[in-house]
Amino acid sequence: MNNFDWYAPTHIVFGRGTESEVSSLLKSSKCNRVLLHYGSGSVIRTGLLGKIKSSLENACIDYIELGGVVANPRLSLVYEGIELAKSKGVDFILAVGGGSVIDSAKAIAYGAAADFDVWDLYDRKRTPESALPVGVVLTIAAAGSEMSNSSVITNEDGGIKRGYSNNMVRPKFAILNPELTMTLPDFQTACGFTDIMMHTMERYFTSAGNMELTDGIAEALLRTVIKNALILVEDPKNYEARAEVMWAGSLSHNGLTGCGNGGDDFATHRIEHEISGMFDVAHGAGLAAIWGSWARYVLDDCLPRFKQFATNVWNVEDSGDCREVALEGIARTEDFFKSIGMPVSLKDFGFELTDEVIEELAEKCEKAVGGKVGAAKVLYRDDFKKIYRMAYNK
Amino acid sequence: MNNFDWYAPTHIVFGRGTESEVSSLLKSSKCNRVLLHYGSGSVIRTGLLGKIKSSLENACIDYIELGGVVANPRLSLVYEGIELAKSKGVDFILAVGGGSVIDSAKAIAYGAAADFDVWDLYDRKRTPESALPVGVVLTIAAAGSEMSNSSVITNEDGGIKRGYSNNMVRPKFAILNPELTMTLPDFQTACGFTDIMMHTMERYFTSAGNMELTDGIAEALLRTVIKNALILVEDPKNYEARAEVMWAGSLSHNGLTGCGNGGDDFATHRIEHEISGMFDVAHGAGLAAIWGSWARYVLDDCLPRFKQFATNVWNVEDSGDCREVALEGIARTEDFFKSIGMPVSLKDFGFELTDEVIEELAEKCEKAVGGKVGAAKVLYRDDFKKIYRMAYNK
Repeated sequence: MNNFDWYAPTHIVFGRGTESEVSSLLKSSKCNRVLLHYGSGSVIRTGLLGKIKSSLENACIDYIELGGVVANPRLSLVYEGIELAKSKGVDFILAVGGGSVIDSAKAIAYGAAADFDVWDLYDRKRTPESALPVGVVLTIAAAGSEMSNSSVITNEDGGIKRGYSNNMVRPKFAILNPELTMTLPDFQTACGFTDIMMHTMERYFTSAGNMELTDGIAEALLRTVIKNALILVEDPKNYEARAEVMWAGSLSHNGLTGCGNGGDDFATHRIEHEISGMFDVAHGAGLAAIWGSWARYVLDDCLPRFKQFATNVWNVEDSGDCREVALEGIARTEDFFKSIGMPVSLKDFGFELTDEVIEELAEKCEKAVGGKVGAAKVLYRDDFKKIYRMAYNK
Repeated sequence: MNNFDWYAPTHIVFGRGTESEVSSLLKSSKCNRVLLHYGSGSVIRTGLLGKIKSSLENACIDYIELGGVVANPRLSLVYEGIELAKSKGVDFILAVGGGSVIDSAKAIAYGAAADFDVWDLYDRKRTPESALPVGVVLTIAAAGSEMSNSSVITNEDGGIKRGYSNNMVRPKFAILNPELTMTLPDFQTACGFTDIMMHTMERYFTSAGNMELTDGIAEALLRTVIKNALILVEDPKNYEARAEVMWAGSLSHNGLTGCGNGGDDFATHRIEHEISGMFDVAHGAGLAAIWGSWARYVLDDCLPRFKQFATNVWNVEDSGDCREVALEGIARTEDFFKSIGMPVSLKDFGFELTDEVIEELAEKCEKAVGGKVGAAKVLYRDDFKKIYRMAYNK
């Protein structure tokens, strides 16, 4: 077991109708002018945005708007938000949407408080002095950005996707109403299940030491997501199942499932980031397409963890052969991904991965991770190439 | 499942040697003068207090001291702390100790920022406008006060023990080094195990609705404490086991194990408070002495939860008779309490509970809880009397 820091200051307001509390939460933040940040689709169609705006107006909370965030949120819109925030004296960013909107809001929060190019943070050239506070009304259970310290932005100039993490942008509050996730298309819902599971699995598969309590929480979370994901494939409007998954999404990425593990793995995430940066595939689907290949590649360096995962998450019977049990856990995970409509091969996306493209992806990934990544097994550029190839040739 | 709020803003710094970070944590709180608050025994003997003082002095952090906190912390010392804090311009309270020291620090934090008698909060006559920030160096894994919003103080005038809860005193940071808990006598260590388990069990046994993810976390936490408590009975210096229990102590009382349950029970705690307020017994031992009687008294109002507890925490085999399984879970819990040296009857403490005393305890309890308490089953004055009697006559 290793020393750890844990900091999850976000005030969670969870349940039916809780979006009605947005104005009182903003009022207690004592802000003067809010930047209301959102996407372009469902928040408008469902009337949620109109409801939030009415609530702010009724409470006499001054706000300006910036919509148009897309999946894999763009640096150009972040720049637009920063300029708007600076010129209009914004002192609070309210994100209404999913992980992309929140990540974009966090980038604006850094940039609006800085006198340098915000991309310098994502490019590891600077560190921030401060950031504007961020609040969230969540509409997608997936990214966990509503409690996390991380934000991932895509620079269109070169299709470069980069993450940056700092406690100062952990949201002040997050409103989580599971009803708001019910209008999401099935495919995106399933991408969310995958992303949620992966945030815990990236922390779970380590060789650096573990904590029993953290493992118990992680395994309970994974079992809960698997069970309720299968319910939601049949019955997408099931409130209880939506709620279980939504709360799992927040707990999966607020650090709780990594306490004491000595460092997260996150290789699958980093390997996937280059795929969704270049081809604009859905992040959750990209993770599902890569994970099995990553798992088989690192298996022998982290065998006891894979066996424990198979036993405690998938209830695989102990055959006496540790490797066989571990492989069965990986196979069941991939079967589960397929059963919720996720790909388990990069070929399923339809693009071609030539040797040149793989070379480019691996190079970008190497640069993004600073040479190496991984806690189950430390991976380098050559390993990335092999995993891209394995995930494509399946 | 019910709507819920969750707010756990305490920055946790966990592991070996982490007390060395106290000055940097205080510095980032930007305080001018610290009240260093502690007990009278082990923190001095072990040299921890000296180490903390040297650290503050080396970092040029101005501080004054107030020691002398006892178990079931006294209002008179709280008053002394408030006067000291006000007269010396203290703007941060640093608690070095266990739950009693932290609770006393929280009471001082309220009082130092108020212009009224702090007991009015505990007596439900006032609400606070603000409180000084509190930080913690924890030496006992038990009360969970290092992340909780609650504080319990005993007014010597009448032996009245009262709790008050407000998010504004959740500690800013808490340093948790499991090594610091190793000098605790075995009995107090065991009282801690009980208190930790009870903070989750008080949230677990409800009839108001539950959340699978919360249940899974709660059950994992209970299994972890039970397993590691038994290790520590044999091997009190086992660092890994100390660490598991210490982290469980914080998570058990920060609200995580109650999310979605529609309200905590806490009847055992409230019934016990009057006992330790009147007789000055150790809180954890008092809880162990009462819980089994409470459980059998409310069993039929909350049977499915008791069965689930027996199955998932104690691995009781399903005999087909739900009540039998549930009763076996209660029996195993009491056996566990006995195996770690806890009483399971009030008679074990050696004082006499006459009908008059029980009448007085029940009356005080009724007043403290505002007439009724409980979520597994709502209990009133007559119920308190019966449970005191059951717990004494065992």
